[in-house]
This record gives sequence, structure tokens and C-alpha cells, in this order.
Amino acid sequence: MTEEPQSAPPSRRALLGWGGAGLALGAAAAGGAVAVAQNQSDAAGAGAAVPFHGAHQAGIATPVQDRLHFAAFDVKTEDRAAFVQLLKDWTAAARRMTAGKTVGDGAYGGLAEAPPDDTGEALGLQPSRLTLTLGFGPSLFDKFGLADRRPAALVDLPSFPGDDMDSSRTGGDLCVQACADDPQVAVHAIRNLARIGFGTVAVRWSQLGFGKTSSTTPGAQTPRNLMGFKDGTRNIAGDETGRLGEFVWVGDRDGGSKDAWMSGGSYLVARRIRMNVETWDRSSLQEQEDVFGRDKGEGAPVGKAKERDEPFLKAMKPDAHVRLAHPDSNGGITILRRGYSFTDGTDGLGRLDAGLFFLAYQRDPRKGFIPLQRRLSAQDALNEYIQHVGSAVFAIPPGVRDAHDWWGRPLLSEEA
Amino acid sequence: MTEEPQSAPPSRRALLGWGGAGLALGAAAAGGAVAVAQNQSDAAGAGAAVPFHGAHQAGIATPVQDRLHFAAFDVKTEDRAAFVQLLKDWTAAARRMTAGKTVGDGAYGGLAEAPPDDTGEALGLQPSRLTLTLGFGPSLFDKFGLADRRPAALVDLPSFPGDDMDSSRTGGDLCVQACADDPQVAVHAIRNLARIGFGTVAVRWSQLGFGKTSSTTPGAQTPRNLMGFKDGTRNIAGDETGRLGEFVWVGDRDGGSKDAWMSGGSYLVARRIRMNVETWDRSSLQEQEDVFGRDKGEGAPVGKAKERDEPFLKAMKPDAHVRLAHPDSNGGITILRRGYSFTDGTDGLGRLDAGLFFLAYQRDPRKGFIPLQRRLSAQDALNEYIQHVGSAVFAIPPGVRDAHDWWGRPLLSEEA
Repeated sequence: MTEEPQSAPPSRRALLGWGGAGLALGAAAAGGAVAVAQNQSDAAGAGAAVPFHGAHQAGIATPVQDRLHFAAFDVKTEDRAAFVQLLKDWTAAARRMTAGKTVGDGAYGGLAEAPPDDTGEALGLQPSRLTLTLGFGPSLFDKFGLADRRPAALVDLPSFPGDDMDSSRTGGDLCVQACADDPQVAVHAIRNLARIGFGTVAVRWSQLGFGKTSSTTPGAQTPRNLMGFKDGTRNIAGDETGRLGEFVWVGDRDGGSKDAWMSGGSYLVARRIRMNVETWDRSSLQEQEDVFGRDKGEGAPVGKAKERDEPFLKAMKPDAHVRLAHPDSNGGITILRRGYSFTDGTDGLGRLDAGLFFLAYQRDPRKGFIPLQRRLSAQDALNEYIQHVGSAVFAIPPGVRDAHDWWGRPLLSEEA
Repeated sequence: MTEEPQSAPPSRRALLGWGGAGLALGAAAAGGAVAVAQNQSDAAGAGAAVPFHGAHQAGIATPVQDRLHFAAFDVKTEDRAAFVQLLKDWTAAARRMTAGKTVGDGAYGGLAEAPPDDTGEALGLQPSRLTLTLGFGPSLFDKFGLADRRPAALVDLPSFPGDDMDSSRTGGDLCVQACADDPQVAVHAIRNLARIGFGTVAVRWSQLGFGKTSSTTPGAQTPRNLMGFKDGTRNIAGDETGRLGEFVWVGDRDGGSKDAWMSGGSYLVARRIRMNVETWDRSSLQEQEDVFGRDKGEGAPVGKAKERDEPFLKAMKPDAHVRLAHPDSNGGITILRRGYSFTDGTDGLGRLDAGLFFLAYQRDPRKGFIPLQRRLSAQDALNEYIQHVGSAVFAIPPGVRDAHDWWGRPLLSEEA
């Protein structure tokens, strides 16, 4: 299941610019470089590696890391073979980077005339729980003769009331979600994938995020969004196998045999939600608590004492966010959220360009985000303070099984 | 020296939305909230508080924290008293936030009709070594009758060859540098200062940074910039009192009696340096190493084995960055650098908008950044791969001495 002997796993540091493999391993030992975690039980440590291979892609049910770099790409080639090669090259690079290694095999030290295989800024950093998660946008299926393989569930998102979309932050043929506990590790990963894809794909838009605003770690403290409220308390935890199977992972028979290649995958809806923080910050505490349906200090639902107390929805205002978003108000709709706060400087009016980059994974957007957002966009009291300004939807193929597998093989392999 | 009794220092968590002080303290104990560090020896811990009071402002010689939110403000009032009140309000808020507390005294829990004194997103987070450092830009001295108090050393920066300035990222009447180990803590601080200043000041531009590219901690591993190289190896360390006094802190007699109010202060030059990473990533390893004058793996100067080996400048190419920037090539010019990497998504051409937000502290820019940058802008081989796209200079007043003092008092107090 592993791509190379792992008796002495080198860190990124060991693999750049030091010539032969013997030298590199010696340097790793001498430099006290960080060993790569070799089994899943280590994966929870902040600096450890998360396994890349599996039935599902990592970065969905994986406990949420602290930082995000998300990139949407457009395909620039009409050559199917070149696109398949890119996916193979990306897989190889992702396999190495998530293990804390440099891109490339490190044996290029002698080739001073060539560009380095790795850009180098993550040298000496830990794997930092890096996960890389690949997705296919609807527009990809207009290319390479893939039209009849577009999954039924990969629908274009409708327009919702209040949407104010910036086309430069919308759509994309591909996406890669990079999550890590160190932003430099996440940025390094996206940059190197973009570099590898030069000429074949180009970044369409990207988004950095910090301060995870939801937790898939059971029992962990719920982070606060930039409105100062705990949000995402009742998220699906990564160890809830039953709920993951019901609400997140695509089943064997979903969509019939045509969509069988998506089995074990998921669907991602990404929304850039701008918060009008200046307006929010001038609203009263009562208004803020009414809007969410929680108290601000503890995060407890209206009338309750503790964050995780079962909410009594009827005690909340009819347009309270928690009430409207709750599965009980939506026929049980449940999505897995991995939101990140963003602050992208200041807009032309001196206002903070800040908000929530909302990432929702689900088994079928037609039964997940779309009906939920129809209700929220029509009724949520929060709408006075937020705007959806970017949007995309992606089919997330199943995981890369082993060292011979590659991202998207079930969709693109001629033998599939 | 402290502003209030500190027998039971509450964390941010304890101080919002829970009514009376007794309740708040009880909740802090029950919630396992983080205690605020009470003495300087704790300040090195990643989550601890850095003392706010002192002869110099914190955030200059302080060991570099992991994250940055830097904001430049313009003054929107002509009322000197309103501006002085803002500085007093900012000081009070900064004193609390750097100690890990909420803005405001926390006793407003009963006032549900009022906006909260604190926006809340840092509740439950540690102080995270937050420092807040205030500066005055040249344009401030055109206001409030301050023209004759502008320090001689606060010159407007000249244009340098290759500058490609974006006016929306340049200048400012005021600046606040927020550094912390948690980005949410840094963002929270700038946002709350902007909120307090509503109507009096407005954010002109701001910049987030991550992945510090220099270290003022002696012996610490030098971080890598987004070109993958170690940079800033020979920075001034925070414990080098002699070099700080010689190169960073303004002396008692600098500028004569007119500028005496700046004694103990410093001058900050901020430059947003965009890196053309796509071009860089396609250049050869040899070219990259020649440009810097170091090897990429270890960071050793040309011909040497280790990063901290004394460089032999003549072994480097004449236009190598390390050679040109070295004090020996510049009559001893030495500046204290606190650079941060930035990645602000993607530009309209699909290129990463990434680079170095360069922050240099010095005793006198006329003897620091300006002559150094004249040389670098004319000769540095790195210029092929970078562009300076934002710029500002600020006088950094001395530290806030105690609980009765406030930022800028030596400049603005009528009794001064």
C-alpha cells in the first residue's frame, strides 16, 4: 500500500539540494528532522501526517486543520492524455507532500541547470496534517468526451435570493482543498500543484482561510466565526461512521450504474460568504443573539445553559439562524461543514473584506445544500448581515486506493 | 504599573455576556479558561501574554510571532480632542487585548440593547503573544497643528528604480501592527481598533501575513520565504541590547530637542514586495542560488557549509542579494526585520498574488532603509523576480509607560 520503502522516512528538509539519497538520509538524521507518522493513530498530532490512501479522500471526515488554501482551476488543454497525466502527476506530488516530503524524488541535487522539483518553502516544516482533496466541477464534463459521465447529483447550483456573485470567485473545472495546521504548508501544496500543472491547468480563483469555524473532532471546543458566535456545534464528527454513510459518502447505487465511479466520493459546495462586520458590530447584543438563536458568551441555544444542550427551536425567533438551519426544520437535512474564516484586507470603502468560506460536503446537493439554502436565503435573519459572493460545486471522487492508483482514475481510466 | 487588580486575571472568555463580575470569575474557573501571564518570563510561551507597558513599544524587539495583521488608517476628523480621545481609547483596548482580555470591562452583560464592547471572535483564545504597535505617518503631521513636530528622520521615502506602487496599498496617517501566534487574535485586535475608531479614523489598507520570514529569537531556526530560501539569518536579536540601541531605538538626542518626544521610539518602513513566483519556480537551482548567494537546502552562504557560517562575500556574484544587503557592503547599515509572507489569492492572470510583507525597524530611515534600498533597487539580482508594490513609513513613538499613559502622549499631550 505504500509507494516506497519507509524504513527511514525523510522529511522535506532531507530531500532538497543535497545530492544522493545516502547523503540526504544522513542529513535527515543529523538535522533532527521530523519523522513522518506511519500509522493512522498518529494522525491526530498537530505536526503529523494524515494517510493519503483510502476508500475516501482525506480532508472531508478528517478532523479539521487550522488553515486552508483552496484553489479552483480551469483546464487549458484539449488533450485528454495530457489531462490524465496531470492527474497522475498531481497524485504523486500529493502523496509525497501529505507525507511531509518534497515534490520529486530528491535525486536532482546534481542538476543545477534545472528548476528544483520543489519550490522549497516547506523545507524543514512538519507534515502539519496536510490533506489535499480533489474535485471535478460541472464544466469539466463539457470536455474530454465526459458529458455522459457527469453524475446526476452534480447539478449547477441555482441562484438564491440575495446572492451577489463575483464571477472571478465562482466556478472552476477542478478544485483542490489544501488543509494543514501550518499555512505555509497549505500554500506550498497549492503552489506546487499549480506549478506542475503549468500549461495544462491554471488557477481560476483561490481562497485562504484560518480559524476553522467548525469542528469534526468530537468533544473539541467549537471555534467562533467572525461574528463572534460559535457555529457548527452539531456538525458530523469524523468518527460517526453511520451519519457519514447516510449524509456524506456517495453510495454504491447512488445515481445508478452510470455514476458508479463516484461510489465512496462526495459532493462539495463552496460558498464565499462576506460578512458586513461593521454593521454587525454596531448591532445590539440582543439583536445578535436573536439572529443566531444562541447566547454569545457560552453559545447555548436560547433558554438553555450550555452550548451542546439540545435546542428548543420554538423558543427561538422564527427567523433565527440556528432554528432555520437545524435538521428538525428541514426534514433531517444534514451536511458536513468545514468552514474557515477569511480576512482579505480591506475593500475600496475601508471595510474589512471578511467572512466565512463555507465548505459543505454531502451525499447529494439536491438533498443537502440546495434545499437548505433555499430556506435560509429566503428567511434567515442573518441575511441582513451577510452576502454570498462566491460559489462553486464539485464532485469529489473516491479516495486514491494505493501507490498505483491516481486521482480520478475511476472517471478517466480507459480500463475503468 | 498595572491598570487594575490582578489577583484573578480573567481570560477573554470570562468577560463577555455573563453579567456580574462574580459570575464571570466563577465561569472562568469552571471553564478552564487560560490564565494571563503575569510576568515577562512567561512571555516566550506560545499562548502567553507579552507585557504592553515599557520604555519601547512591544512588537519590535519582541520575538517574532507567527501571524500578522497590519493596518494603515487615515484620520477622518479635524478635531484634535477627538483624535486624542481615540488614542486614549485605543491604548485602553490594546492594554486589555494584549493581556488576553476583551475590550471593555465586561460589565455590560445586562445591556442587551447596546452593541457588545467586544466583537467576540477571540473569546476562549489565549493571549497568543499579541503585540500591538502604533505608528504615525508623515501625513499625520499635516493635521492638528503638528507640522513643526514632525521628526527630521520621518522623511517621505523616495521612488526607487523598479517600484510599481499601488496607491491603495501605500501611505497612511497611522498604522497598527498586530502580531500574534493565532491569526484570529491578530484580526480581532485590528477589527476592534477599527470599530472603536469608527467616525474618527478609517482603514486605508491592511495586510495579513503568515510564515514569518525572519526571526529575532537568538538561535531559532530561520524561516523560509516564498522563494524557498532562508532569509534574514543575520537579523538583530531581541536580546542584543547594544545593537538595538545603536540601530533601532531613537536616542535621547536624535534630531535635537524638537524630536525629543521620539526618544525610545523607532521608525518603521513597510514594503509590500510581490514575488513573481511562477517565473522564479521555472528558474534553475543554480540561478536561484546565485541570486541569493546561498544554497537552497541548508541556507549556507556560497562556499560555506552552514547557514550561520560567516559569508565570504567575494565568493558570491557581485549582484547576489546576500552580498549586496550585507552590512559590510553598506558601511555597516543594519536594520531589524520582521517580515511576513503573504498570499492574497490570485491576480487576474491566474498568478499567485504572493510575496513578502517587509517590515524594517531602524533608528533613522535616512541611515537605514533608504541607502540600503538605493543599492538593492539598482543592483540586486533578485529584482528580476520581485516588485515593490506597496510602501509606507511611520514614526513609532516610545512605549506606553504605565496604566495612566497612552499611545502618542509625548507628541500630543498639552502638558508634554
